[in-house]
Amino acid sequence: MFAPTKDDINFSPEFALFDSGMGGLSVLRHFLDFFPRQDFVYLGDMARFPYGSKSRETIRRFAIEDAASLMAFRPRTLVAACFTVSSQALDDLVAFCSPVRVVGMVEAGALAALSRTKTGRIGVLGTEGTIQSGAYPAILRRLSGRDAEMLGIACPLFAPMVEEGWIDGDIPERVAREYLSVFLDSRDTGVDTVILGCTHYPPLLPLLTRLFPGITFIDPGYELAMSERIHVEEGHGSGQGRVSYFVTDGCRRFQRVGQHLLGRTIDNVREITISGDFPIVEKSGRY
Amino acid sequence: MFAPTKDDINFSPEFALFDSGMGGLSVLRHFLDFFPRQDFVYLGDMARFPYGSKSRETIRRFAIEDAASLMAFRPRTLVAACFTVSSQALDDLVAFCSPVRVVGMVEAGALAALSRTKTGRIGVLGTEGTIQSGAYPAILRRLSGRDAEMLGIACPLFAPMVEEGWIDGDIPERVAREYLSVFLDSRDTGVDTVILGCTHYPPLLPLLTRLFPGITFIDPGYELAMSERIHVEEGHGSGQGRVSYFVTDGCRRFQRVGQHLLGRTIDNVREITISGDFPIVEKSGRY
Repeated sequence: MFAPTKDDINFSPEFALFDSGMGGLSVLRHFLDFFPRQDFVYLGDMARFPYGSKSRETIRRFAIEDAASLMAFRPRTLVAACFTVSSQALDDLVAFCSPVRVVGMVEAGALAALSRTKTGRIGVLGTEGTIQSGAYPAILRRLSGRDAEMLGIACPLFAPMVEEGWIDGDIPERVAREYLSVFLDSRDTGVDTVILGCTHYPPLLPLLTRLFPGITFIDPGYELAMSERIHVEEGHGSGQGRVSYFVTDGCRRFQRVGQHLLGRTIDNVREITISGDFPIVEKSGRY
Repeated sequence: MFAPTKDDINFSPEFALFDSGMGGLSVLRHFLDFFPRQDFVYLGDMARFPYGSKSRETIRRFAIEDAASLMAFRPRTLVAACFTVSSQALDDLVAFCSPVRVVGMVEAGALAALSRTKTGRIGVLGTEGTIQSGAYPAILRRLSGRDAEMLGIACPLFAPMVEEGWIDGDIPERVAREYLSVFLDSRDTGVDTVILGCTHYPPLLPLLTRLFPGITFIDPGYELAMSERIHVEEGHGSGQGRVSYFVTDGCRRFQRVGQHLLGRTIDNVREITISGDFPIVEKSGRY
C-alpha cells in the first residue's frame, strides 16, 4: 500500500497533472516555466498507455481512476494533460472532482487558434480518438459563435516516431508530408493555423514549421500554462518548486525518454498500481 | 457479470489464444487453416494494448489475468499468441495453467529458422520488450546446443504502420530499410534468415521479401500452427469449427481492422472486463 510520508502529508500542490503516459510532460514543461515556485504532482498511466485508440467508455473509466488517485493530494487545479481524455471525458472529470477545478487541453489551444487565424480555417492534428470525438468542432463553434471550419487529421505514427527520437530527417519528413498533404497547398483549404492536438507532437514543431512555412502551429500546452496565470498569483502559495512523479509502469523508461519531452531531468518517481477501487498501491521504492 | 449461455457451457475449445490486442489474429489465421473443424476462443486485451513497451512485471500480471479468464473455457491448449508475453512470461503461464498445455510464439519460429539457415546467423524483428528480453538468444542456444549468432532489431513503428494499412509504398519501404539497414549488405552480417517476432509484422512479408531477396523470412504463427498438427488429430474432437472472440475494448475496431490480419470476417465478438480478481464481466451485448 501507499504509505504517505511526512513530506506527502504536507504536500498540497497547486497543480496535479495526468496523462496516459509521458506525453503530458510536454505540458508540464510549460507549467514549470511559468510557475517555477509552485508544487506539482504528475501521474503517467504508462501501464495502460496509450488511450488514443480506445473507446470512450474505457477512456472515461481510466480518466476517473487517474483523477481519483490524484485527489488524495488535494490539488487546487487538476490538469487533464492528455488530449484524448480532454476531448472525451472532461465533463466526467469536472463532475467527479468538484469542487476542485479541472482544465483540459482543448479549450486553450482552440482560443489561441481562433485569435491567430486570418482565414478562419483551422486544422487539428491528433489521435484517432481525439479527431473522431468532435470535441474541436464543438469548442470552436462555442468560442467563435459560428460553425467553425475545421479540418482534423489523425496522425497515429507521430507518437511512436517521437518516442523513437525520429523528429527530423527523411522518414519524419515523408510521414509529415503524407499526413499533412492536404495543407501543402494551403490555397486549396485556406487553413492557416494548425493545432498540435496531442502531447507527443511538440517535438515535431521545428520540422513542421520548416515544411509548412505558411502555417502557424499552436502548442496547446504552452497556451494552457500561459492562460493559467490568470488563476495563479505567483508567490501566494506555500509551494517550494517541488514535483512528485507517479507512474503505473516503466519508471526507468519514463525517466529516460520523458526527459526529452520535459526538457530537464526527472527524479522523485514512484511506481504505483491503480485499481478500479482507487487505492494507490505502491509497487516499489523511489528511483 | 458474464452469464454463460448453454452454448458457452457446452463449448470446450481445442485452442484458447490470447494477445494484447488484435495482432494474435495473424496467428489464429494459420490455426484456422490447419484445423478447420476445431473450436477456438480468442481474447484480445485491447484496453491495455500494447504490451510491447511495458515492464516485465506488468506483462506477467496482464498475461496471468488474460490466461485466467480463458481457463474458464477448459481449452486443451493455451496459445500465448503474443511475442511479448511469450518471451517474458511463458514460464509463469506454464506454472499457472498446469495441467493445461501452454505454447508460445518463440520456440516454433526459432526451430524453423535454425532448420533453414545456412550461415547459422539469424535475425529477429520485434518490439523493444521482445528484443531486450533475451528470449531468442536463449532458445536458439538451447535448440542448437551452441551460442546462437543472433541479431535482434526493435521496430516500434511497424505495428502502428500495419494498423494504418501502410504495408507497401514509399514510407513503409523507407522505414523497413531504416530498421533493416544492417541486413542490406548481408555479406557483412551473414544473416540469411529473419524471424518476424511480432504478430503485427506478417502483413509486411511481401514488402520485406521484395526488399531483401537474399533473406528467408519466418512467420512464427505459420510454423506454430503447423507444428501443432503433432498434438491434434483432426476429427478426434467434438469441434464444430466455431470461434468465440472476446475483447476488453474496441469491439468494432477489432472487427474492422482485425479482419485484415485474420483474412476473413469476424463475428461473435463480446466485450468483457478483466480485473485482477479474474472474473469475466460482460460489458455489452454480442456484435
